Amino acid sequence: MHEITTAAAIDLKEKLLRIHEHWSPRVVAEMNDYQFKLAKVQGEFVWHAHEDTDEVFIILDGELVLEFRDHAVPLKAGQMYVVPKGVEHRPVAHGECAIMLVEPRGVVNTGDAGGAMTAPNDVWI
Amino acid sequence: MHEITTAAAIDLKEKLLRIHEHWSPRVVAEMNDYQFKLAKVQGEFVWHAHEDTDEVFIILDGELVLEFRDHAVPLKAGQMYVVPKGVEHRPVAHGECAIMLVEPRGVVNTGDAGGAMTAPNDVWI
Repeated sequence: MHEITTAAAIDLKEKLLRIHEHWSPRVVAEMNDYQFKLAKVQGEFVWHAHEDTDEVFIILDGELVLEFRDHAVPLKAGQMYVVPKGVEHRPVAHGECAIMLVEPRGVVNTGDAGGAMTAPNDVWI
Repeated sequence: MHEITTAAAIDLKEKLLRIHEHWSPRVVAEMNDYQFKLAKVQGEFVWHAHEDTDEVFIILDGELVLEFRDHAVPLKAGQMYVVPKGVEHRPVAHGECAIMLVEPRGVVNTGDAGGAMTAPNDVWI
């Protein structure tokens, strides 16, 4: 148990102020074996899938488009989406967008794709 | 798989407009075997614990105090908190407050306490 989960409120805006890289999720909370991660994103991510888990996107600020091979889902602040496990997707943000991800501990941001946009995992703020 | 999780964005404000009862969580999304639930709350809930799971509170609007036996955690919109499994807690909202709960499918709102405030489980909006 990380002490941050028992000590005080987790303020999402305050956490976001401390994120300066794009596409590099930071863990803010754990619930059982799941993690809540914040990220700032801008531009096009890589096409990838997570073979073993669904993945939740909650938009905190700005706009994000979740591209799928046959359609796209535009999302804005106050909206969320569940990408089913195994489904290829590519997040794209035209401006800077702040998101919260919810997924099992250990999930890597680029899933099965790997590559240069793969971020260090399990980094807390 | 509930179709709402694959079809379109889940708009939290739009969902909240359709909730008219207090302390009666409504499911808006599933991720693996976890559910995301929205609730409007006001007043004092019952003291209870969830013996088998942590429970996440995300405050969407208003203010909520999570009372514990030896301290209290005030929360406002944009903040979240993880109640560790087995820990007795009582949510209290002086005004109306909108929250999102994240927890495994099947968790009952009153946990081990039961009683009159126990809401029907697994009700989607």
